[in-house]
Amino acid sequence: MDNFYILHDSQNTYYRNPFGAVKIDTEISIVIETQGCQEAFIELIYFDGQRQNINMEMFHKEGQYNTCFFKTKFTAKTTGILSYYFILKRGSQSLYYGNNNEGLGGIGQIYYENPRFYQITVYEDSSVPNWYKEGIIYQIFVDRFFNGNDNGVVSNPKKNSFIYGNWYDEPMYIRDNSGKILRWDFFGGNLKGIVKKLSYIKSLGVTTVYLNPIFESPSSHKYDTSNYKNIDPMFGDDNIFKELCGEAKKLGIRLILDGVFSHTGSDSIYFNKQGNYETIGAYQSRQSVYYQWYRFKNYPDDYESWWGFDNMPNVDELNLSYMDYIVNKDDSVIVKWMKLGASGWRLDVADELPDDFIKAIKKRIRETKEDGVLIGEVWEDASNKVSYGQKREYLYGKELDSVMGYPFRDNIISFFNRDIGSQWLIKRFMSLYENYPKENFYASMNILGTHDTERIYTVFNNRYNNDSIATSMVKLAAAFQMTFPGVPVIYYGDEAGLKGGRDPDNRRAYPWGRENKEILSWYKRLASIRSNSLVLKRGELKFFHTNDDVICFERTYKNSCILVAINRNIDRTIKVEFGEIRGHFKSLLSNYKADTHYSANGSISIELKPMEVKLLVKLF
Amino acid sequence: MDNFYILHDSQNTYYRNPFGAVKIDTEISIVIETQGCQEAFIELIYFDGQRQNINMEMFHKEGQYNTCFFKTKFTAKTTGILSYYFILKRGSQSLYYGNNNEGLGGIGQIYYENPRFYQITVYEDSSVPNWYKEGIIYQIFVDRFFNGNDNGVVSNPKKNSFIYGNWYDEPMYIRDNSGKILRWDFFGGNLKGIVKKLSYIKSLGVTTVYLNPIFESPSSHKYDTSNYKNIDPMFGDDNIFKELCGEAKKLGIRLILDGVFSHTGSDSIYFNKQGNYETIGAYQSRQSVYYQWYRFKNYPDDYESWWGFDNMPNVDELNLSYMDYIVNKDDSVIVKWMKLGASGWRLDVADELPDDFIKAIKKRIRETKEDGVLIGEVWEDASNKVSYGQKREYLYGKELDSVMGYPFRDNIISFFNRDIGSQWLIKRFMSLYENYPKENFYASMNILGTHDTERIYTVFNNRYNNDSIATSMVKLAAAFQMTFPGVPVIYYGDEAGLKGGRDPDNRRAYPWGRENKEILSWYKRLASIRSNSLVLKRGELKFFHTNDDVICFERTYKNSCILVAINRNIDRTIKVEFGEIRGHFKSLLSNYKADTHYSANGSISIELKPMEVKLLVKLF
Repeated sequence: MDNFYILHDSQNTYYRNPFGAVKIDTEISIVIETQGCQEAFIELIYFDGQRQNINMEMFHKEGQYNTCFFKTKFTAKTTGILSYYFILKRGSQSLYYGNNNEGLGGIGQIYYENPRFYQITVYEDSSVPNWYKEGIIYQIFVDRFFNGNDNGVVSNPKKNSFIYGNWYDEPMYIRDNSGKILRWDFFGGNLKGIVKKLSYIKSLGVTTVYLNPIFESPSSHKYDTSNYKNIDPMFGDDNIFKELCGEAKKLGIRLILDGVFSHTGSDSIYFNKQGNYETIGAYQSRQSVYYQWYRFKNYPDDYESWWGFDNMPNVDELNLSYMDYIVNKDDSVIVKWMKLGASGWRLDVADELPDDFIKAIKKRIRETKEDGVLIGEVWEDASNKVSYGQKREYLYGKELDSVMGYPFRDNIISFFNRDIGSQWLIKRFMSLYENYPKENFYASMNILGTHDTERIYTVFNNRYNNDSIATSMVKLAAAFQMTFPGVPVIYYGDEAGLKGGRDPDNRRAYPWGRENKEILSWYKRLASIRSNSLVLKRGELKFFHTNDDVICFERTYKNSCILVAINRNIDRTIKVEFGEIRGHFKSLLSNYKADTHYSANGSISIELKPMEVKLLVKLF
Repeated sequence: MDNFYILHDSQNTYYRNPFGAVKIDTEISIVIETQGCQEAFIELIYFDGQRQNINMEMFHKEGQYNTCFFKTKFTAKTTGILSYYFILKRGSQSLYYGNNNEGLGGIGQIYYENPRFYQITVYEDSSVPNWYKEGIIYQIFVDRFFNGNDNGVVSNPKKNSFIYGNWYDEPMYIRDNSGKILRWDFFGGNLKGIVKKLSYIKSLGVTTVYLNPIFESPSSHKYDTSNYKNIDPMFGDDNIFKELCGEAKKLGIRLILDGVFSHTGSDSIYFNKQGNYETIGAYQSRQSVYYQWYRFKNYPDDYESWWGFDNMPNVDELNLSYMDYIVNKDDSVIVKWMKLGASGWRLDVADELPDDFIKAIKKRIRETKEDGVLIGEVWEDASNKVSYGQKREYLYGKELDSVMGYPFRDNIISFFNRDIGSQWLIKRFMSLYENYPKENFYASMNILGTHDTERIYTVFNNRYNNDSIATSMVKLAAAFQMTFPGVPVIYYGDEAGLKGGRDPDNRRAYPWGRENKEILSWYKRLASIRSNSLVLKRGELKFFHTNDDVICFERTYKNSCILVAINRNIDRTIKVEFGEIRGHFKSLLSNYKADTHYSANGSISIELKPMEVKLLVKLF
């Protein structure tokens, strides 16, 4: 017999138990099944580099091909990533079995050399406050949301800046020939505008507002901070900020701020390159109290800056004076704004912040408010992200509560734009589900777009070149987002069908009075369903493999179960059958009408029209 | 005797009488004085090309060198420029005597060949309405003057345009890499703003407001007209225009509009390149009623346009349909706005308009209002301007009443910036005085700056690099302007010391609340003196040659006389003596204190401190 066959499925609890990431000191059992192999070892590699070889024990043999089952157990003793693969003896030959080529976990593959590792994420602690995890986030780029002043007057415009002639104008950068920004452009949105629109925001089921940066800065994006302790005068002041937090709280809405701590602005009280501030800045004198925050190569004009933009000099985050100012002091930046009402922070470019800086912030946040949260901007799978050659410690318990779900967005777009079928979509999501500590997976920011990406409507319209289809696809994507584990994030305007290509087009002003009503009412409906459903917030996740055009998953919590099925096909009705599912279902989106067909054996089938979503609630 | 000597001074009535330009059918006497020449001919060349030779008559001979005086008379029979020079016989040799090399008139020079001609301008009629001639003009670039809306709200901003963040921001063009304008920039000044500032304008002695274009157009400068029959919606509407004219009239102020008739905008109801208008434009179809207005080389994208700017397609002004629309119809552009209250027009780029088009407009203006005026944008001496190879008929009576006095500005700047001394300044002004019909000289727009030049303050500050000196020089220039023949023109803001380099910097917003008080009160004072002085409005002009740093002239009318003396030297007190002047003088600027010194023979001398101006009024 020359055939051989090996199977380990990291996502099947028969082969690995428990599922997914584990808390430290958890015992993990591993099973591998083979035909034609005599022995199996596991090689385990801990994050801290300690290597172990375990000789697995054959505990069962069956069938005409002598299928052998090997098992072992071990305990995760260090936070980090525990990597493993299998070495199998076959006569005098050694074979390897490891993670599949895509590194997505689940069923792996045979290697003759250099096997890819399976990943077990080992965390220390991972409790994320419920208010955050079970909420809905609304992201606001403040200048573009709403101007709360009477008559549309813009407060305190910057010297030599431009205001868009109309709220509906197309954003643009005003640059010179070399691409440098000559003047900053503003629409005039402000915090008062958010106060005035809180009831609208509430109508979307929102419980958390995440604000792009609001501190004093020359730009419209405000990622070049001038003063971390002032609200930008165009946006408001401390009192208006307090008012915003207070009014939001009355509606059950919390605020998260954007902390841009990897660099300051060059035009700031700290660096003061233009001399616009009264302080002595680092650029102006080596005697400046801020001098040690920065990294000068050749003083004063040659300094390290964020991606080479000289208006954003990088800081040395671990410098004690900087740490005191941002984190540790009684009136630190973190503390000041939380005391005034913020409930958490989102860390800009978390990849570029030292782990110890992130941990210090997390600690300070929890000291200040026991249910404060810390979110990080991470663009990839945050459980195994490497930046600057270092594996990052984001999700082991002392760091981030949540990361921005760019992989979520990529997956959704790939599927609805027909780049991948549902089989792959499931694999990709299962990989995240497996790698993230469950708390973090359920706390993940499930975004469809942000200020750094094309608008979701435009992504679909670019693919289908048809407004009606783009509208439907946005609705399907929103349905997925609102029924999936993780925190749905609405980037202001997406719920109104706002269009927009890349930056700056993705920062158009919210289309007050010109909303896409179909999308908007859909968002409100889905958000309302999620807001009232513990199943959707907390339920276990299980995918079903059906048709490649259909994504289907089940959420279950206690005695409740909701089945989600979405047909992306733009012109075909598709009938899908679920051999495994029994019971009676009614449709949440069709007035609780019964909406399933039953086969002779009691299993169900569903018919999905083109671009239809069904949410079926199980009747017990 | 080998020496010879020839003299003709076109500006001295002994040698040519009458002085300067003459009305048709005027008899002109010419005298030339020679030593060592036997005979003199005048060769006369009329504008119409007819050449005449006149043999001059020797009527007197005197002195030890046999100085001979020759004379002749002739009558100007054709409007235009009558050119002349002299041929002199000296033995068997012919010599020429003509205008000096600079062509400035006055004393000429000997040529052995190709003499330069003297010029006699022959006009048909030249009466310019007194209200215009004896007034003071205030030029307003509307977007930059004052926003009359409450709270600084900008009315009807254009789609995809920018509003300056602050009234005091620095203007800039928003261009792409190729220099093309991407968005238009606005401050938000409007007609209501002018209405609200009329009493301020009146306080400057202003009797005429000249508005840069106000008709609908996408740009801030509005030289790319979209619709000649609409006020731009950002500026106002017909009713506000009527209100402006009405309120101005109550204060004795008239309005002159900018007529931009050599081209339209491409984004217009006529051309409609972008399809922004509901009309069928010339660009859209050859069937368009506007098609024949334009000159297409290759329809529709290759068309003649103003200086190659494709947003300003040139028109064929003499096309009958265009003439009807602009000039002839009962509701023509010219007629509509005059009926609503305008008192005249300024023709943009008059050089590029056919004489017949200008004449038709002039005729139509006078038909509509008997005291309506027509001004032309001409950058040089308008009496002998050649454009596109043709001598232009601007000042012969059926055309322009007045031209923009760029030569005035050049002269003033050259003198006060020390590029020329007062001897040359006098020569240059005398040339204009000689060449322009007197009515037109007295109606000339005496500008120190416009929307097309650097601000006068900045011109001086660039030269002296000193704010205090620049301020003084502006005051001296204004004093000259307010005491000289011709209509003083104040380019909005110049009276407040507004700074500004070339376009667009010369179009900064009026500095409300930040005026240079010294300059402003000086302007008001000088304007008040002029407003109350028939001598300064109507008086004859006579220059005195004194010190090269001092410009000195006398204005006399009936029994009144004002002597003006200005010392441009920044640190020297200069005493000037006037052998020819007798009498008692008092100083207008020093509470009518007596302020002259008398020599033994009764002639006077004046002492001028550095950068001092004296206005001395003669006591009879």
